[in-house]
Amino acid sequence: MFVERLDRLKKSMEEKGFSAVAVNAGPTLTYLTGLHFHLMERPVAIVFSLGNEPIIILPELEQAKLTHLTFAVKVYSYGESPTIWSATFSEALAKLDLAGKKVGVEPAQLRLLEYEYLRSACGDAHFTDGSAIFAALRATKDTQEIACMRKAVKIAEAALEATLPMITIGACEKEIAGELFMQLIRQGSDTSLPFAPIVSGGPNAANPHAQPSMRPLVAGDLLVIDWGASYNGYISDLTRTFAVGKIDAEAEKIHTIVQQANAVGRATGKPGVSCAAVDKATRKVIEDAGYGQFFIHRTGHGIGMECHEEPYMRGDNEQLLEAGMAYTVEPGIYLPGRNGVRIEDDVLVTVDGAESLSTMTREIRIVG
Amino acid sequence: MFVERLDRLKKSMEEKGFSAVAVNAGPTLTYLTGLHFHLMERPVAIVFSLGNEPIIILPELEQAKLTHLTFAVKVYSYGESPTIWSATFSEALAKLDLAGKKVGVEPAQLRLLEYEYLRSACGDAHFTDGSAIFAALRATKDTQEIACMRKAVKIAEAALEATLPMITIGACEKEIAGELFMQLIRQGSDTSLPFAPIVSGGPNAANPHAQPSMRPLVAGDLLVIDWGASYNGYISDLTRTFAVGKIDAEAEKIHTIVQQANAVGRATGKPGVSCAAVDKATRKVIEDAGYGQFFIHRTGHGIGMECHEEPYMRGDNEQLLEAGMAYTVEPGIYLPGRNGVRIEDDVLVTVDGAESLSTMTREIRIVG
Repeated sequence: MFVERLDRLKKSMEEKGFSAVAVNAGPTLTYLTGLHFHLMERPVAIVFSLGNEPIIILPELEQAKLTHLTFAVKVYSYGESPTIWSATFSEALAKLDLAGKKVGVEPAQLRLLEYEYLRSACGDAHFTDGSAIFAALRATKDTQEIACMRKAVKIAEAALEATLPMITIGACEKEIAGELFMQLIRQGSDTSLPFAPIVSGGPNAANPHAQPSMRPLVAGDLLVIDWGASYNGYISDLTRTFAVGKIDAEAEKIHTIVQQANAVGRATGKPGVSCAAVDKATRKVIEDAGYGQFFIHRTGHGIGMECHEEPYMRGDNEQLLEAGMAYTVEPGIYLPGRNGVRIEDDVLVTVDGAESLSTMTREIRIVG
Repeated sequence: MFVERLDRLKKSMEEKGFSAVAVNAGPTLTYLTGLHFHLMERPVAIVFSLGNEPIIILPELEQAKLTHLTFAVKVYSYGESPTIWSATFSEALAKLDLAGKKVGVEPAQLRLLEYEYLRSACGDAHFTDGSAIFAALRATKDTQEIACMRKAVKIAEAALEATLPMITIGACEKEIAGELFMQLIRQGSDTSLPFAPIVSGGPNAANPHAQPSMRPLVAGDLLVIDWGASYNGYISDLTRTFAVGKIDAEAEKIHTIVQQANAVGRATGKPGVSCAAVDKATRKVIEDAGYGQFFIHRTGHGIGMECHEEPYMRGDNEQLLEAGMAYTVEPGIYLPGRNGVRIEDDVLVTVDGAESLSTMTREIRIVG
């Protein structure tokens, strides 16, 4: 699996004229190696260069992780004292002879910490934004990745179903969020959840990024639950909106509109269709119903190892979808001070269309 | 509160010859402003420069957060399209006139993304590691910070007490971790927990970074639980080790040794004592008992908004403790393939000693 990914990386580097790529701790490093490192105070970097064995620079105490590697790397490790980090980088990079060469990095992931050590160690190498290479590799999911994402969706759906019985009038958002945390782990999520669930009722639901509060649910609330699981590092990210007891006509109406927008959004994706087209088709349903100004964010984002990755479903993103890409479709209507609705699914582009990995009903369900 | 922090920042900048400091999304930005931003694909930066109003560059859709600011800033916001990010940074930084000046940044937090926009926008400003300024500001906690940390400890202790009844022979590590997640939220933790609890029994306890597995507890296991809560963004990070049923003599022995080491470590800190001294005193107890080679990590790390921050309790860190600093004391003994012990407390340096914020018993308790 990793050998195949490295082959794709090499091909892409050759096509785009990169002599090397350098990656620090984060999802791309995990994608290419299977290794997990946290972004700690100590630098970790792996460098893939054409014609050389990959090299990795890491703290001694992390070396045990390398036993899981499925390909050969040259290892340069350092002890606890920061004074030797620079020398370790210099030694590691000396033989790669990168002076004057183009080295691809990820600006949204690479820290100045690793960048400065790499830069000093490489003489006058030309560090360039190589994000497009990594994003393209990671955007089309392979069989193993899709299997993990399906499982992450199943775990999330089971966890929410198991949580529903305790959602009653008077229960507070944080209580529900706590139960959902437990159910996610119990149903099989990695304990490193992709994000803390959002549980927001009534006026709180009008804020798409609300944090669960001590506010108890009252009859008439719309209740937005945005939650996800992680399975072998691959995540799900779903949202459903519930009616707490009897809701008013406008609440019902905006739920129906968002449900339609979600359905149109899920149906629009296929190979060759642009991300912008998915956003526009979804948004049009809400605009046509007269609520365009209350859909205040993009339609979705890519999903996989990260909760936000390429491709982004934005009106100005003309990137074309390819089979294997996965992203969220999550239209919403947010009425400040009153209530809000969002319905979010995880969609996989197939050879001739798009499949929603999530299948939990999108009809409004009454809780409480 | 923030005005006082900015005054300290300004004083420190003047002393160290910085004309400005630039900070991206992360705990230092939150410390200085009270604002929370995630590290997303979009750049966020705040720049404090001597003689000018602070400036902040951020996405339009994050602007609502600025209503919580308690001091004046000049705001430069941008829309969804990345093509205008560069121009926004240039406009924002033009009037600060930083060419040739020294600008402090945080290399372990600043990404190449923000760095390149800042660098291009500042002409030939001299970007320099300013971590020491931020670390020094943040390392000595003020009254509000200490109050939040005390609360985060109380929440964590209550959550573990509430979890204990379900820890039985046959319960698996993940089940226990799931219950602990829920109890942390229920007892009042922020839903963004500082880290996923470690629950590791028997041979798994020999790995200090074990992830909770499906392994059921068996009689004779040592059970290590490393957990923490978050309160208003301030965290706790504790560890206790339990006996599952009857444990053997060696397991009892290593627990006693680690308990003594923890007590010595907690008692060693006071203003003017070095971090190295805390590490060495703690380690000596384990070395003298003949288990030195099995204590495979440093004695502790600073704690506050982050789970790992300055000061680090390492044998080579001659930094001197000051009143208001907070750190963990977490000695351990790890016997590969057999079992492990760790006992971790959160310690605050007082005017003439050190106080453990955590008070839960460190005696071995029998569960199951």
